[in-house]
Amino acid sequence: MAVIDLNSDLGESFGAWTLGDDAAMLDLVTSANVACGFHAGDPTTLFRTCRDATERRVRIGAQVGYRDLAGFGRRFIDISSADLAADVIYQIGALDALARAAGSAVTYVKPHGALYNAIVHHRDQARAVVDAVRAVNPSLPVLGLPGSAFLEEAEAAGLRAVREAFADRAYTPEGRLVPRTEPGAVLHEPDAVAQRVLELVTKGTTQAIDGSRIEVPAETICVHGDTPAAVEMAAAIRKLLDDKKIQVKPFV
Amino acid sequence: MAVIDLNSDLGESFGAWTLGDDAAMLDLVTSANVACGFHAGDPTTLFRTCRDATERRVRIGAQVGYRDLAGFGRRFIDISSADLAADVIYQIGALDALARAAGSAVTYVKPHGALYNAIVHHRDQARAVVDAVRAVNPSLPVLGLPGSAFLEEAEAAGLRAVREAFADRAYTPEGRLVPRTEPGAVLHEPDAVAQRVLELVTKGTTQAIDGSRIEVPAETICVHGDTPAAVEMAAAIRKLLDDKKIQVKPFV
Amino acid sequence: MAVIDLNSDLGESFGAWTLGDDAAMLDLVTSANVACGFHAGDPTTLFRTCRDATERRVRIGAQVGYRDLAGFGRRFIDISSADLAADVIYQIGALDALARAAGSAVTYVKPHGALYNAIVHHRDQARAVVDAVRAVNPSLPVLGLPGSAFLEEAEAAGLRAVREAFADRAYTPEGRLVPRTEPGAVLHEPDAVAQRVLELVTKGTTQAIDGSRIEVPAETICVHGDTPAAVEMAAAIRKLLDDKKIQVKPFV
Amino acid sequence: MAVIDLNSDLGESFGAWTLGDDAAMLDLVTSANVACGFHAGDPTTLFRTCRDATERRVRIGAQVGYRDLAGFGRRFIDISSADLAADVIYQIGALDALARAAGSAVTYVKPHGALYNAIVHHRDQARAVVDAVRAVNPSLPVLGLPGSAFLEEAEAAGLRAVREAFADRAYTPEGRLVPRTEPGAVLHEPDAVAQRVLELVTKGTTQAIDGSRIEVPAETICVHGDTPAAVEMAAAIRKLLDDKKIQVKPFV
Repeated sequence: MAVIDLNSDLGESFGAWTLGDDAAMLDLVTSANVACGFHAGDPTTLFRTCRDATERRVRIGAQVGYRDLAGFGRRFIDISSADLAADVIYQIGALDALARAAGSAVTYVKPHGALYNAIVHHRDQARAVVDAVRAVNPSLPVLGLPGSAFLEEAEAAGLRAVREAFADRAYTPEGRLVPRTEPGAVLHEPDAVAQRVLELVTKGTTQAIDGSRIEVPAETICVHGDTPAAVEMAAAIRKLLDDKKIQVKPFV
Repeated sequence: MAVIDLNSDLGESFGAWTLGDDAAMLDLVTSANVACGFHAGDPTTLFRTCRDATERRVRIGAQVGYRDLAGFGRRFIDISSADLAADVIYQIGALDALARAAGSAVTYVKPHGALYNAIVHHRDQARAVVDAVRAVNPSLPVLGLPGSAFLEEAEAAGLRAVREAFADRAYTPEGRLVPRTEPGAVLHEPDAVAQRVLELVTKGTTQAIDGSRIEVPAETICVHGDTPAAVEMAAAIRKLLDDKKIQVKPFV
Repeated sequence: MAVIDLNSDLGESFGAWTLGDDAAMLDLVTSANVACGFHAGDPTTLFRTCRDATERRVRIGAQVGYRDLAGFGRRFIDISSADLAADVIYQIGALDALARAAGSAVTYVKPHGALYNAIVHHRDQARAVVDAVRAVNPSLPVLGLPGSAFLEEAEAAGLRAVREAFADRAYTPEGRLVPRTEPGAVLHEPDAVAQRVLELVTKGTTQAIDGSRIEVPAETICVHGDTPAAVEMAAAIRKLLDDKKIQVKPFV
Repeated sequence: MAVIDLNSDLGESFGAWTLGDDAAMLDLVTSANVACGFHAGDPTTLFRTCRDATERRVRIGAQVGYRDLAGFGRRFIDISSADLAADVIYQIGALDALARAAGSAVTYVKPHGALYNAIVHHRDQARAVVDAVRAVNPSLPVLGLPGSAFLEEAEAAGLRAVREAFADRAYTPEGRLVPRTEPGAVLHEPDAVAQRVLELVTKGTTQAIDGSRIEVPAETICVHGDTPAAVEMAAAIRKLLDDKKIQVKPFV
């Protein structure tokens, strides 16, 4: 029987500003990528998200990003390896303390936004993130794009590298994500997205933006929580997976 | 034989800006209150300070403060208890991860600047800091002013409350610190400061700003690291204590 | 015939985080209190709000606040007069450049949130804001609470002091705003709020939270833009004023 | 008779952190590139630097940078043109208000750090800065590297483009600055630097890092204020220029 993990970016509100409906998403996913305060997430928000995740027995991961609130971590920053590694250790530790105070703990790490995209190919930054995770806890799995420099470096360093696919993002024929700034990069139709997820889970393939069919091996699928219809989309995915008797549970 | 702990505020540089001479101070003190990024301390600085402290077998404490880089944490902020508690958990966790990556760990907590002063009497904020420390680890000691609301709340909550005196700060007759904005609040003469420390350690008293002699029970003495002659002052203190055969070692 | 100005807090989004519906509010009010980046408002947001206001011929004011994005400027900060004055000059200048680039200019100043409330009685901070406004342009009017230290200091310094009332905030019998943290502090029912505004405009009175009727002399009325039903409320106010043939136009 | 302008980066302290000796540098240079708060410079620091510059009749320019206090504006950020333009307008306006409150005004614009280097070749960012300057005031000159995309775009847009050379930075044979991260990138010996400046002023040439002699046409020369021996170096340059009867005064 097919099994899949659903993960979502949560805890991305900041102070008076609310983003996404964390409580609703936590009823639908099995892994919560909780922001760590550098691209989003004030400590009060993070603490509440950790408590809500813990209550629903949803696993907590540290969604580490560039220090860039104004850009929501979506702008590449040419940061040195030493600075990036220290930033990542800091963020994981901060979230882990909140997660532990909530009765859980950080059990994996997923880079966010521009950092996620950069370390598909930027080997120095990829290595810095890997070094940071190992320095905190070498048994923490990391999530990334299949074939990325990041997952390569993670495996080489002995970390568990978890391959991830995206429910609502278009792919290039090479298996990269189409940049958000390009037309068609983000998919919005819940049923179509749910069908894509089903194909990813059952066949390990998806249709790229040029119409070709590509292989996307994935142990977890990211369902974004910050798009307008995020909850509806996640619900459609979850319902289709349930209908097809596909088990949704955390990766191991 | 008399025994005393010397602590100092360290890790307070930020990015391109350097403050204090951490390496020199670490040769003189036994406990390092390392900033946590909210009032000072970028992660790279904090990591280096943690490594330097670990190398010299100096104990690391989390110096938590208000989120106020522009004010260096020296301005009172009327923050809610929930926000303050989450901020403090976040800071302790962030520093602890860096300390652990450096081979050590956070072994106590000391509030910084305006927060330190506020919780001498601001009971809600005092309780919020205590709640945060307990949520992280109820066996972490906290440093504070003898007689403060903070130490009262800490003891009531079962935390180890460590009473602290200041080497280079003037006291009111009531045993409070004279605010930095007032004349004579900060002492600068190394030999005079060293003599004050000796009196604090051997007799548990000091001369208040009005000339009266007051009791200041202390298990640790703070030697500031950010004043111009900080290292010289700490060296004078350390030398006098050594000459008088007073053992300088971490509080337990 | 009665005349009144309606003002609203706008430009309070930040990066990926949206707050309020600025475009809709700009169709209903005559003065836009645009944030200046310290409590809210990234430059791109501020620029767009200035362009939208200019297009609709809505006057632009600088809504200056404490430097506190995490607290949205709603937490009192015990900042020195010199720092506060420099912060205010900086904020007015920043917004004015964006307003001018949009074809308009900053034509008044209104403090935000905790700063607004603090300078009802905190005379040093009130004077610092007044000094800053005078330093930028002594012909800029300032908005504040009738009877506040801020408007007293403004008048004493020769500034035009514009008295303001709040459409959706409860008043104490002394004419102060009931703090947001207390029950009943913010009103939500559009028709009731519109009737309050009508009474404020035609009689200069309102009902305080204890049921007593108090005098609230006002040349401008603040309609908040960040409450859930803000646009609906502003539309109800505007409609009732139009029905009653009350002219809504900028204060002079 | 040869004439040259000397400019220096000033106002780069932040809160409790001091960088450089602004007062001493202001006695030696003719143009002050004052930070604007995004890479350095809290408003109180900026205001004081503007007052000190005004007193000494030193011209004030806006040193605009990326929003990156932790990186001191020295890390490239892949920011969109719209965001960069708004950020630059905001910064110029903020500093101009402080400069005017000090009795002067912003009379030119110079990008800082990684932004300065990026727009040597990054045409979109170069254009965004040019657009921003034009939106504020099309008569403001801009300083940049001779041959850079920035100065090309500035001239094409009708701005006065002022070519700048660096006293203490090594050049590649192509006339670019050797990156700070490379050995030999920053020169430290005052007399050697002063001789380089003399050659730049009198012959328009300098020796590149490979030993070749290259043309560096310059109307202004940057003397950094944040290196350890900055004041000594600036004094040596000033003395040599005075000895050689070269007039040091602002570019026009």
